[in-house]
Amino acid sequence: MLPYFRGRWDRMLIERWDRMLMKGPVRRLIPGTLLVVLLSCASPGCAPAAQDSDGVPGSISSAAPLPSWNDGAAKQAIIEFVTAVTAVGSADFVPVAERIATFDDDGTLWVEQPIYAQIAFGLDRIRELAPQHPEWQSTEPFKSLLEGNMEGVAAAGEQGLVQILLAGHTGMTTDEFVGIVESWISTARQPRFDRLYTELAYLPMVELIAYLQANGFKTYIVSGGGIEFMRPWTEQVYNIPPEQVIGSSIKTTFEMRDGSPVLVRQPEVFFVDDKEGKAIGIQKFIGRRPIASFGNADADIPMLQWTLAGEGRRLAMLVHHTDAEREYAYDRDSHVGTLARGLDDAAAGGWSVIDTKSDWARFFAFEQ
Amino acid sequence: MLPYFRGRWDRMLIERWDRMLMKGPVRRLIPGTLLVVLLSCASPGCAPAAQDSDGVPGSISSAAPLPSWNDGAAKQAIIEFVTAVTAVGSADFVPVAERIATFDDDGTLWVEQPIYAQIAFGLDRIRELAPQHPEWQSTEPFKSLLEGNMEGVAAAGEQGLVQILLAGHTGMTTDEFVGIVESWISTARQPRFDRLYTELAYLPMVELIAYLQANGFKTYIVSGGGIEFMRPWTEQVYNIPPEQVIGSSIKTTFEMRDGSPVLVRQPEVFFVDDKEGKAIGIQKFIGRRPIASFGNADADIPMLQWTLAGEGRRLAMLVHHTDAEREYAYDRDSHVGTLARGLDDAAAGGWSVIDTKSDWARFFAFEQ
Repeated sequence: MLPYFRGRWDRMLIERWDRMLMKGPVRRLIPGTLLVVLLSCASPGCAPAAQDSDGVPGSISSAAPLPSWNDGAAKQAIIEFVTAVTAVGSADFVPVAERIATFDDDGTLWVEQPIYAQIAFGLDRIRELAPQHPEWQSTEPFKSLLEGNMEGVAAAGEQGLVQILLAGHTGMTTDEFVGIVESWISTARQPRFDRLYTELAYLPMVELIAYLQANGFKTYIVSGGGIEFMRPWTEQVYNIPPEQVIGSSIKTTFEMRDGSPVLVRQPEVFFVDDKEGKAIGIQKFIGRRPIASFGNADADIPMLQWTLAGEGRRLAMLVHHTDAEREYAYDRDSHVGTLARGLDDAAAGGWSVIDTKSDWARFFAFEQ
Repeated sequence: MLPYFRGRWDRMLIERWDRMLMKGPVRRLIPGTLLVVLLSCASPGCAPAAQDSDGVPGSISSAAPLPSWNDGAAKQAIIEFVTAVTAVGSADFVPVAERIATFDDDGTLWVEQPIYAQIAFGLDRIRELAPQHPEWQSTEPFKSLLEGNMEGVAAAGEQGLVQILLAGHTGMTTDEFVGIVESWISTARQPRFDRLYTELAYLPMVELIAYLQANGFKTYIVSGGGIEFMRPWTEQVYNIPPEQVIGSSIKTTFEMRDGSPVLVRQPEVFFVDDKEGKAIGIQKFIGRRPIASFGNADADIPMLQWTLAGEGRRLAMLVHHTDAEREYAYDRDSHVGTLARGLDDAAAGGWSVIDTKSDWARFFAFEQ
C-alpha cells in the first residue's frame, strides 16, 4: 500500500486508513505517539531466542538450506520444488533463464504491522516538512496532524489524506527522493520492536531468497508499495537489485535544469501494482511468467494464479501470520494484509500456506 | 514507433506515417506491393563482401573485440571506455552491479528502413485478419487498404490509421500475441534485402552487446517500439532476455477464463517509451542510471543525456547511417530515425557519432 489515490485502489487505501485511524489499538499508535507507545522488547514474548539456529545467514548455500525454518510441510514443499526444477534430466527441469520467483514485500518479506512502513514514512515526512510550510499550522489536514489530533485529520476526509500523503512523496526529483528514503530508512524505528524497519526483514524469507538465487533463480519483489520507496534498500536487505523491484509508481516528467536532466515526481498515478496489477506488473516488467511466487494476503492471489497457470511444475505460497508472541497474528479482519480467501481457497487454488508459528524457527536476524 | 496514439506521440506517428504514405519512393512500397518492389540483392551494392572479417560472431569474447568494426575513433572510444570502467584500481572503475548499458532498437540494433518492422507487421495483420472481418471489404479505411488504394486510406485521416493499427495489436491475450509475433517474425521478409527482419540485426552492434556482456554489463533495449512485439525474439537475436527489454506498451486487463487467468491487450496506451519517455522508462524499469547508451535518432537524445548526467565516466553514441550502398543513408529528412540535433549538438552534448560507412566493416552476419 502506498500514497497513490485513484479509483478502486485509493478507496481501498482510504478505507483501511480510516479503519486504522478509528480502531482503538491502532489509533493509539498514530503520531505523536507513534514512536512512543510500546510493548516492551525486554518481555519474553517480544524477541524470543531462536528455537533452531544451527545455520547462520552467511552460510546458507554451503550448509543445509533454510536453517530458520522448522521441518514441516512448507519447508519440504520448497526443497522438493527446487530440487525438481533444477535436476537435469528431471521431468520438471526448468532452464535457468526461466527460473523466475516473485515475492510480495509488506508482510511477506518484512513486518507490515501496525502500519505499513511507507505509511509511517509518509507521516514522518509531514513532520519533517512542517518547518518549510508554516501555512500548515493553520491549514487542515496538516494542522490537525501536527497537533496529533487524528479526529481532525479524519474530518478532512479522503481529500485530506490524499494531501497528507502526496505532500511527502512528490515535487522532488527522483534522485532527491532516494536521499529522503535513505535518510528515513536508516533511522526510523518500528514501534513494537524498536528496531530499524530493515531489521524486521523475515530471516526465513531472506534465506529462501538466497536459496533460490543459489539455485539459479532470478528473484523479484512485486509489491503494492512504491517502487522508489523500496529500491534504495532492497539490495542491502534482501540481495534484490533495483532492477528486480516492481511496485506502484507515480508519473515523472523529464526536465532540464541548469543543463542537466532530472526526473520530477508528479502527484499522478502511473501504475498500481496491487491485486490484479501484480500479474499485470509481472508481465510488463519481466515479460516471463514466474515459476514460484510468495505472498501473504488476498491481494497477492492474482500473482499466485498467474504463476500457477503456466505449464510445468510451479510453487505458490502464502505466509499466514499466526504468532502473536514472536511477531503478529492476523488474517481475516486485519487492516493490513487481509487474508481470508487465501486461506479458504488454498486447496482449490493450488497454493499452500506457511504458518509462521509452526514453520519459522526464528523470525529475525537480530534474534540470537 | 508503434501503434499507440495518444497526445504528442501519436501525432508524431501520424505525421511520419502520412509523409511515408505520400512520398514517392516509399509510397510504392505500401501494400500490396510491399513485398514485391525491390532492389536486386544480386547487385554489388546490396550485400557486399565484408571488408574485414577476421573475427566470427562466436569468438567475440576470446578474440580481439568488435571484429566487424574498422579501426577508428568509434571503436577506440568503446574499447577505452570498457577498459577504464572494468580495470580494478582505475579511477573510472564501476562495480559490476552498476554496469548498465541501454540500446535503442530500430535503426540502432536492426534496420528501420523503409518502414519500421512493426509497421510492416501492423499492415500484414490487417491482411491476415481480413477473412475474419468480411465487413472490412466495405468499411473504410480497411476497404481501401485491402484494395491497395492508399489515397483512400489517407482520406480516412488519423482515426483511420488508428483503426488499422489497433485492429492488429489488441483484443487478444498476451500469450496469443506472442504466438502472432513469433509467426510473423519467422516468415516476414524485409523488401530490399529479401531477408527475415531478424537477419538484419547489425552485426557490429550484436558484437558490441556481447563485448559489454563479457565485461560484466547488463544490457537493455530501450525502444519506442512495442515491448511485446520485441520480447519474443530479442533473446535469440541480441542475447537480451525479455526482462531487459523496455518499450512502449498498451494497457492490459486481468481476466479469469475457464478458471485460468489471462491478460487481455486493450486499445489504450500504458506507456510511450520514446524521447523523454526513454529516460523515464529507464528509471521506471531499471531504477539505475546507465553508464553507456546507444541510439541513432534525435528521439534517443534524452536517453543519452540521462546517461551522461551521472557521475563518473560515461559513454553515449549515436549511429549515423551513411552507407546507401551497403545499407541506407539517412538523417535530417528521414521519415524514420530523424537525426539532426544529434549531429549538430554532439560536441556540446557529450555524445559521439558512429559513421556506418567508415566505422562498420560488415553490416550483417549473413555477409561473408
